[in-house]
Amino acid sequence: MLNFEFYNPTKIIFGKGTVPQIANNIPKTAKILVLYGGSSAEKTGTLKEVRTALTDHQFEEFGGIEANPTFETLMRAVDVVRSNNIDYLLAVGGGSVVDGTKFVAAAADFEGDAWDILKTHGQNITSALPIGVVLTVPATGSEMNSFSVITKASTSEKLGLSSPLVFPKFSVLDPTKAYTLSEKQIANGVADSFVHILEQYLTYPSEALAQDRFSEGLLVSLIDIGPRIVKDRENYDLQSNLMWIATLALNGLIGAGVPQDWSTHMIGHELTARYHIDHARTLVSILPAVLRVRKESKRLKLLQFAERVWGIHEGTDDERIEAAIEKTAAFFEALGIPASLRSYEIDEAGVDAIITQLEQHNMVALGEKQDVTLDVSRKILVESL
Amino acid sequence: MLNFEFYNPTKIIFGKGTVPQIANNIPKTAKILVLYGGSSAEKTGTLKEVRTALTDHQFEEFGGIEANPTFETLMRAVDVVRSNNIDYLLAVGGGSVVDGTKFVAAAADFEGDAWDILKTHGQNITSALPIGVVLTVPATGSEMNSFSVITKASTSEKLGLSSPLVFPKFSVLDPTKAYTLSEKQIANGVADSFVHILEQYLTYPSEALAQDRFSEGLLVSLIDIGPRIVKDRENYDLQSNLMWIATLALNGLIGAGVPQDWSTHMIGHELTARYHIDHARTLVSILPAVLRVRKESKRLKLLQFAERVWGIHEGTDDERIEAAIEKTAAFFEALGIPASLRSYEIDEAGVDAIITQLEQHNMVALGEKQDVTLDVSRKILVESL
Repeated sequence: MLNFEFYNPTKIIFGKGTVPQIANNIPKTAKILVLYGGSSAEKTGTLKEVRTALTDHQFEEFGGIEANPTFETLMRAVDVVRSNNIDYLLAVGGGSVVDGTKFVAAAADFEGDAWDILKTHGQNITSALPIGVVLTVPATGSEMNSFSVITKASTSEKLGLSSPLVFPKFSVLDPTKAYTLSEKQIANGVADSFVHILEQYLTYPSEALAQDRFSEGLLVSLIDIGPRIVKDRENYDLQSNLMWIATLALNGLIGAGVPQDWSTHMIGHELTARYHIDHARTLVSILPAVLRVRKESKRLKLLQFAERVWGIHEGTDDERIEAAIEKTAAFFEALGIPASLRSYEIDEAGVDAIITQLEQHNMVALGEKQDVTLDVSRKILVESL
Repeated sequence: MLNFEFYNPTKIIFGKGTVPQIANNIPKTAKILVLYGGSSAEKTGTLKEVRTALTDHQFEEFGGIEANPTFETLMRAVDVVRSNNIDYLLAVGGGSVVDGTKFVAAAADFEGDAWDILKTHGQNITSALPIGVVLTVPATGSEMNSFSVITKASTSEKLGLSSPLVFPKFSVLDPTKAYTLSEKQIANGVADSFVHILEQYLTYPSEALAQDRFSEGLLVSLIDIGPRIVKDRENYDLQSNLMWIATLALNGLIGAGVPQDWSTHMIGHELTARYHIDHARTLVSILPAVLRVRKESKRLKLLQFAERVWGIHEGTDDERIEAAIEKTAAFFEALGIPASLRSYEIDEAGVDAIITQLEQHNMVALGEKQDVTLDVSRKILVESL
């Protein structure tokens, strides 16, 4: 096992009917800004429920945070925070709203150009406003971690920040809030969680028994519920499991003490920035190619993945690995998500453009062994076409 | 899944060579009391390492906290805290030292009879001193939870407290610190962790996929490493896995959203109080009887346990359950721990005495369905003889 630090102070309030508990978890004296995304928070009634819960609190609202939240929009929220002396942020929505709220929390007190926060990946902040979350989309894990990814619309740059200062103080996870999501949104959430787990699991062995078993347990569970939940979205058992699994997939636990990859995410971010493909779909589109191109480096864990997650015991090592990759791709296709770039009409010139972006963002040594050079990324992209 | 709250703010600093990091995790201005147990902390050099790390801090020391730490000893530590204006506690040891330190933290500022803290199970405290931990024994999980169990020597009462105020701020988990433990201590740690997991897993199904898979993963891992580590105690891979598994077994994670039992612990506490049997050994001595006596109530989870943890697929339901219980007992016996009360020379009069203690402590409706009455506890104890 590798040495590690694990710290996660977010309080999770989980279950049906828990939204009113936000009132007891925010100081009565707080001046709150409620941040949300599009019109769905209003239409589904979640925003109304939040307003009712906050009857005895002072609050303002800021809507319109988009998927892949932009620096430009969020800086307008920072202005609202500053001009209203806001001292508590409540994110109501999915990963984009939570990520955006984390950036607002960090930028509110920041002096100078707030884009510098992202350029230093959050290392230059010394304070942040407290954050609460009412989660409506199970997918990114942002509700229980210290990460945030923000896009600058003017330059199509997508950068991440990570700081213990932006852990939510609490997150309300009511699985019924996900009932109104579309089949595509739920499928994306399953896929996003699945790839989060693989980025922390499919590397090389590090004698971390619990972490491996936890990752495998989450993967097996997603394989169990994924194809069912996209068709049965008002099933509490399925939604509650997806919501908790998505949180556990990226709260630091399964990644503690093990090598981590994240090359699929880094390449995926460039695909989203250039082609506006949903985040989860970019991951799925290149994942089989990542596993095939990097098969030698990941051989031992791919064999473990084949055996423990997919129950594949027959065939040579190479056959079992290929069978596991095929089953993984078929799992995503069954969710309605293409497991290649074919359907996005990207050609070799598009690959060149993505490689240029990776180079511009210094993504030239990715992966658990930092050996995913631009040449390897190119091979992955070409293999995905 | 049941509704739940999960909150665990303890920072884990894990790995070889991490003891010096205590210095960066305790404020420079703190007046520290270092609490420890017997002479082993001195002999193994851990205490020396702690003193070296604290060169730039002010600290006092308090040794002599016993296994099953007593109220009487700990109140002497409270006197030291008060007379030296101590404002930070550092526990160096295993679960008993950590449990004892939590009580001292709660009692330091408490007005009135501090035994009342335990009578109310910690519900009447409003503050506690901050705690850091250097763990030397993988077993109880106290290093990352809010629980503590204290014994009043004068009356042989053993009571627990639980309060979010006593979560350690940080815990240093250096697996090499466990190298000097005896075969018996390590075996006890494996057994204690195993039973902690079962108390949260072997109840009835609650559609909690991740929690079940996590519990099963920890159990399978303990079955893998248990018999090896007792013979190979300076093996870093084995010790690092045991230490992290023991922590995960009782940090609130696998118990979130599922029913919990804890009857084995409650009966076991009475056996320790009366017969001074090691905590872990009391659990093992009655566990097979608990599972046999309560087979109908636990049937579905026992079948799942047989299949997923022990890989038993053949035979009738009853045969598979009995095989799983036999394998569990054999696992403990292979660690050198008797899986019955036979070796402790307890007779039917002894059973009467334990039942009387359970009654005195109001332990009359135990288990995940509160249906472990004194009659059921008696059946369990008689079956264990």
